[in-house]
Amino acid sequence: MNDFMARRSELDLDLYVIETFQFETDIDPEEAAIHLCQEQSTAQWKRVDVDEDFRIRYGAKLLNLKTVGEKSYVAEIAQPHINFGTKIPNLLTTVCGEGVFYSPAISTIKLLDLEFPESYLKEFQGPQFGVQGVRDLLNIHNRPIFLGVVKPNIGLDPKGFAELAYQSWLGGLDAPKDDEMLADTAYSPLAERTKLLGALRKKAEQETGEKKMFIANITDEVDRIQELHDIAVQNGVNAVMLNAWTTGLSAARVLRKKAKVPMVSHFDFVAAFSRIPNFGMSERLAIKLQRLAGFDMIIFAGLSPRMKTTEAEMLSHVRACLEPWGNIKPALPVPGGSDWAGTLPSLFEKIGHADFGMVPGRGVFNHPAGPSAGAKSFRQAWEAIQQGITLNEFAKTHVELKQAIEAFGN
Amino acid sequence: MNDFMARRSELDLDLYVIETFQFETDIDPEEAAIHLCQEQSTAQWKRVDVDEDFRIRYGAKLLNLKTVGEKSYVAEIAQPHINFGTKIPNLLTTVCGEGVFYSPAISTIKLLDLEFPESYLKEFQGPQFGVQGVRDLLNIHNRPIFLGVVKPNIGLDPKGFAELAYQSWLGGLDAPKDDEMLADTAYSPLAERTKLLGALRKKAEQETGEKKMFIANITDEVDRIQELHDIAVQNGVNAVMLNAWTTGLSAARVLRKKAKVPMVSHFDFVAAFSRIPNFGMSERLAIKLQRLAGFDMIIFAGLSPRMKTTEAEMLSHVRACLEPWGNIKPALPVPGGSDWAGTLPSLFEKIGHADFGMVPGRGVFNHPAGPSAGAKSFRQAWEAIQQGITLNEFAKTHVELKQAIEAFGN
Repeated sequence: MNDFMARRSELDLDLYVIETFQFETDIDPEEAAIHLCQEQSTAQWKRVDVDEDFRIRYGAKLLNLKTVGEKSYVAEIAQPHINFGTKIPNLLTTVCGEGVFYSPAISTIKLLDLEFPESYLKEFQGPQFGVQGVRDLLNIHNRPIFLGVVKPNIGLDPKGFAELAYQSWLGGLDAPKDDEMLADTAYSPLAERTKLLGALRKKAEQETGEKKMFIANITDEVDRIQELHDIAVQNGVNAVMLNAWTTGLSAARVLRKKAKVPMVSHFDFVAAFSRIPNFGMSERLAIKLQRLAGFDMIIFAGLSPRMKTTEAEMLSHVRACLEPWGNIKPALPVPGGSDWAGTLPSLFEKIGHADFGMVPGRGVFNHPAGPSAGAKSFRQAWEAIQQGITLNEFAKTHVELKQAIEAFGN
Repeated sequence: MNDFMARRSELDLDLYVIETFQFETDIDPEEAAIHLCQEQSTAQWKRVDVDEDFRIRYGAKLLNLKTVGEKSYVAEIAQPHINFGTKIPNLLTTVCGEGVFYSPAISTIKLLDLEFPESYLKEFQGPQFGVQGVRDLLNIHNRPIFLGVVKPNIGLDPKGFAELAYQSWLGGLDAPKDDEMLADTAYSPLAERTKLLGALRKKAEQETGEKKMFIANITDEVDRIQELHDIAVQNGVNAVMLNAWTTGLSAARVLRKKAKVPMVSHFDFVAAFSRIPNFGMSERLAIKLQRLAGFDMIIFAGLSPRMKTTEAEMLSHVRACLEPWGNIKPALPVPGGSDWAGTLPSLFEKIGHADFGMVPGRGVFNHPAGPSAGAKSFRQAWEAIQQGITLNEFAKTHVELKQAIEAFGN
């Protein structure tokens, strides 16, 4: 057998990360897959004039190859993690770097999944709070979590912005948040914004008798993230968001070490490398890696037509957040994009349980009667579901839901 | 005119980053482009019941739209940088985030370029050394810089590894380097490796009378990069490499602030979002952003068949490193992948000047007579070019070049 091939039974699987690639080639697929193993490990596996073979310990090894379409194949490859260690940048470089995308005779390739041994996972903290921790903080144990993106998303001064969040809390939102485009900006410094939000959050808790959360976007250059986290927390804000892939997953993992509040990730940039069906890295894996890096809530593309995501993909991404994974706690899945109260019943039905979040924007903040009414329309939609009544029926006695249906339900 | 449109003459261009997108749509392209402006700025541009309009100051504005193919269009959009500031993660979130990839009725989209006002560029340091600084350090002013990837790239202990680099210096290589997959690993700790390399580098300088460089790969979690930089420099290593996009460009920008030696970037992961012709971000822009973040030498996909890069693309990427760009110094372009001495003449001819680097691996380290001979073959190839002699002719009197042609020249 070729020295870049092995059977699972021959390997100490504790020493390997298993990669699953889908690729296309015009040549013999086994030959192409062996090239792929060489390029992402040690194509030159010995020194000139020295009797040695680095393939044995350091070579990537083809475990399995199957045909899935015309000239299209799925390969499982065992990659020795001694090559990169338990470090996110070095892992990504190996499994999704030059060796993968510039392997001879492979025309298109996508990294579909990674499988880690438990001993490897143990070196990662994963989510600090996880689904249960977020539920405990909010004291919500039997329904989806209602996040929300304060809109207008950009341009508003801190005072006007905080007032909108406050109104949404009063109406029943659990966790309004900064838009992914609003972080620490000149027109709305994070320190000023979070100070107002921290105070209003406590006021809203007193007035509603409910626990409330605000999610502050601390996306910034990596040497400022911890400082912004500390400012937000000191000001009474109790969750932070990072745009995971534009900041870097490693920065998220570093923040996780000292984070005092739940970490939320936003999916910007993920589409750039995941949305082409046969190229790049799968969105599912991008989500798993965010969970590995330590995010407690993961926002990803949801089901509205704008988000171009199938039901099967969305459900797979929900599972990627929640499925058992060694010592890594579940993260709350938050499929997002153009939601309003009327999209809750079908989303809940499709997911089949309440361990998820929603993150409406205009569905709350452009409600014709304002953000408090917008938030109410979500809580009413949930109440209707609990009572087994259609939204249209429930709307007859609940004006905010009725207004939402009229505004967004065409 | 629509409020998400403007003419260049109407805007204070100092306040905007200009984006160039290519996209496909089935609907009216102007309508699609306006959606695109909304989604990446402020789709909901006012509060309910408040008389205000955030589009004026914060809205992205369509400047220009042209048809470039069937259902294919190029749009220029002015994006107010007050929305994100001079911060790389926030910039990327805006220009290549959710708003871009999930804009209604746009089926595929690629960010081709960004144009920055000089006042914006001034907030970035860019390369510390640049082409001239690297040339001064190496005392090489009239020829390409010969980098090289020590091979076997992974698995070798620090002593054997350093010996290969030393041999390559003696043969005439300027700057051997760690492979992108070899950073601070259990089997080859960076501290141990750089200690040996630092000492041998000085020895090689004494023996050859030439200035020599080693490029240590300090890719790691972002809270360890500065420490690894300091260890490498203290050990006498005089350049460092980061895998820019798996670590995050922001981490590179932060390193730049305290870096004492040239910074080199490797292109792993860039293919994942740039290689599909009509989707993601252009490789050219990815290179420009690496220059902006502060890299002095930028390695990118070169011309060998494995690298799937056209001559026009390669030349455009060389220019992206070198072209005048406000206060941002030129970075040394290093087109890489499967080079050997025989690929130098055509590369030099195509580029048309000597301001570039080459980064052979096996072409030096798998030379049949070893790395010193491999390095010699490169210097001989350059000598042949200088004398206007073909490599085959020159090889008659230069055995290392002859061996290289026999080994790699089929």
